[in-house]
Amino acid sequence: MRLSRYFLPLLKETPSEAQIVSHRLMLRAGMLRQEAAGIYAWLPLGHRVLRKIEEIVRQEMDRAGAVELLMPTLQLADLWRESGRYDDYGAEMLRITDRHERDLLYGPTNEEMITEIFRAYVRSYKALPLNLYHIQWKFRDEQRPRFGVMRGREFLMKDAYSFDLDEAAGKAAYNRMFVAYLRTFARMGLKAIPMQAESGPIGGELSHEFIVLAQTGESAVYLDRRILELPTPGEDVDYGGDLEPIVADWTGRYYAATEDVHDPERFAQTAETDRVTARGIEVGQTFFFGDKYSRPMKALVSGPDGVDRPVQMGSYGIGVSRLLGAIIEASHDDSGIIWPDAVAPFGVGLISLRPGEVAVDAACEEAYAALTALGKEPLYDDTDDRPGAKFAAMDLIGLPWQLIIGPRGLAEGTVELKRRATGERQIVPLAKALEIIGR
Amino acid sequence: MRLSRYFLPLLKETPSEAQIVSHRLMLRAGMLRQEAAGIYAWLPLGHRVLRKIEEIVRQEMDRAGAVELLMPTLQLADLWRESGRYDDYGAEMLRITDRHERDLLYGPTNEEMITEIFRAYVRSYKALPLNLYHIQWKFRDEQRPRFGVMRGREFLMKDAYSFDLDEAAGKAAYNRMFVAYLRTFARMGLKAIPMQAESGPIGGELSHEFIVLAQTGESAVYLDRRILELPTPGEDVDYGGDLEPIVADWTGRYYAATEDVHDPERFAQTAETDRVTARGIEVGQTFFFGDKYSRPMKALVSGPDGVDRPVQMGSYGIGVSRLLGAIIEASHDDSGIIWPDAVAPFGVGLISLRPGEVAVDAACEEAYAALTALGKEPLYDDTDDRPGAKFAAMDLIGLPWQLIIGPRGLAEGTVELKRRATGERQIVPLAKALEIIGR
Repeated sequence: MRLSRYFLPLLKETPSEAQIVSHRLMLRAGMLRQEAAGIYAWLPLGHRVLRKIEEIVRQEMDRAGAVELLMPTLQLADLWRESGRYDDYGAEMLRITDRHERDLLYGPTNEEMITEIFRAYVRSYKALPLNLYHIQWKFRDEQRPRFGVMRGREFLMKDAYSFDLDEAAGKAAYNRMFVAYLRTFARMGLKAIPMQAESGPIGGELSHEFIVLAQTGESAVYLDRRILELPTPGEDVDYGGDLEPIVADWTGRYYAATEDVHDPERFAQTAETDRVTARGIEVGQTFFFGDKYSRPMKALVSGPDGVDRPVQMGSYGIGVSRLLGAIIEASHDDSGIIWPDAVAPFGVGLISLRPGEVAVDAACEEAYAALTALGKEPLYDDTDDRPGAKFAAMDLIGLPWQLIIGPRGLAEGTVELKRRATGERQIVPLAKALEIIGR
Repeated sequence: MRLSRYFLPLLKETPSEAQIVSHRLMLRAGMLRQEAAGIYAWLPLGHRVLRKIEEIVRQEMDRAGAVELLMPTLQLADLWRESGRYDDYGAEMLRITDRHERDLLYGPTNEEMITEIFRAYVRSYKALPLNLYHIQWKFRDEQRPRFGVMRGREFLMKDAYSFDLDEAAGKAAYNRMFVAYLRTFARMGLKAIPMQAESGPIGGELSHEFIVLAQTGESAVYLDRRILELPTPGEDVDYGGDLEPIVADWTGRYYAATEDVHDPERFAQTAETDRVTARGIEVGQTFFFGDKYSRPMKALVSGPDGVDRPVQMGSYGIGVSRLLGAIIEASHDDSGIIWPDAVAPFGVGLISLRPGEVAVDAACEEAYAALTALGKEPLYDDTDDRPGAKFAAMDLIGLPWQLIIGPRGLAEGTVELKRRATGERQIVPLAKALEIIGR
């Protein structure tokens, strides 16, 4: 993409409305614009990151055997009356009346609707195990929306729902999602720690929150530091096999809990030198709630014995839009964002120091074509801005590499390559720079 | 994808609620489930087609120089009060009140919001031309939703917005979208004819509807049959050049109009043998409306002369979810859907006639791996259903190819390859079948 044809409205001033660093940086980097309290437009740069994160989530869901569908944003209130949650949900549910005076709501989550879909089509254990997920906009009418995408009202969530014949199979389905979550967050450059959690309005006994550690986290967390060194399951993890040993490693060996369920006595059993008290950001949560929805909503399946029973369910959420904020909280410096390679909006910032000068233009075009062919999605700053402004802008938007081409270097046959994360600079021939980026 | 691990709930009965063939087939093929009047869940097969269509739309928008962002589904009513459309829009606008009694609405279109975004950041002609688009769910509270995705209430729309300094540049932007639309629909296997149209509540003088001809179309259309033979602009069309000759070919040479603007006197000037009266389905509409929004909303840009003036705008919609219905209306037979290759949910239906028999399983696995490697996205029917049911299911869901593997053929070293569109069958060795599919 050529910057002269792109839409990247950077802000020079730090917006006063933004209280946390991710919100400030997203506004300054031209990623986001508030359209109403807690409701945002995703400007082109922000939208690109959102799509990258969404695609990683999708790939890991698919790998774990989940099947994608797409439920609508609006739901019938009657569906929530069936489960008993319509009255319980409170003021966070955005209730809507249509022109025919029917009660609708903007879905904050989809347990009821997916149960309705399941019961409409599935009658037999032979269709199980089944895991259906979607990535769709949700709405929660927060009393006090703030912190940008971290606590917005309209937000993008991935929610998956597992259906199994009995509790043991349900727990195996839970484990598949648990492992998929470890992989998903690791691919985004995050260390997300699963922690015991209360299940709240979703329900059930078994629940984990996946927490990214950050000083600006919304809640206190307590953990054994050794959990930070556990290995992430690889791409070759066998989702058809027994995943309990992996889950047990992450949940049973070391203490890790949010403040809601923190148990100081158990924490005290961890050696003092391993005890970590920190703050964390929740980026996902898993629930196993058995027949909480299937029983009142009569989603029954017959087993091999011919007897009908309520299907055993779990649900598994990832805050896709919130992840942008969490990643920035975990990866930035005073100059701006530092995107992990896997979610960067563009792979390389290509900076021309002298647009209009024939040799510089030619070298930039050559680099642009080569980077595009490498699949590195360059953002080519071909504008007339002064070099200092270009450098600051690239640092702010945080692309992993900066490739800087100017007349002086070219006279000596070199370009400058900068790695954003480390600040390391190399003066090398263009071919060498392309080779390094392509590694 | 293995069918045994997929979620494809086919219906044997034709649902009585469905009045038109695309709606019937989408329900029977397990693509769609109604969750409320005009509000649908996209089951996995339907979701896959939706994503393919969305991706073609995205590619052609990007090729034409438009930049993607994403605006939220909910909007502030105050924004629509600025343009004067809040009161005008009528009962089709879904009006919402949040917990703080603020007036919101579920966006039916985004002229106001994009104008607000533009004016917040752009002040100078140097940032022009600019075209911003998004692909997002919209809501129109139809009095009587029906015909499935053809007239739903919650629907997926691509809407692009062009910003230019003067009318001439605005018309050039309009032409780029016009050409992109010709390409977009052609890539989906559709012949969409641009026709003069009224601009309705969007406004402006210049507007075209892109109409797919189908017996079940919602409105009468009148055209010169020679327009059906005009060539679609190729992938190498120069969006930086003058596109007026292409647009003139499609709009000036031959008569084509919807009933709203039909002029029988002009139509009578077409030779009688070239006059076609038909029915059509609108799949897109383009508008140039100048300063209709920029003037009341004060979206001003300064020109090279330093003088501020309201930016010249156009908007360009494509009904992404509606396109599924339009494609099926245009491409089906008594047995089911016939997907054009470019939008098919899977490329090949791989049918095992004897799951569990070693040689058949081995050949199917070999074919499955080879088709996957070819990027043909096979759907592998590995279930225990009887062959007749498998054939009927594959015809119903309409994948372009069926590759049928059974013990009798294998004994002779052959498999059966069927092309869904023509019904043509070939008995060939597996390697030959793969070669034909891969062409």
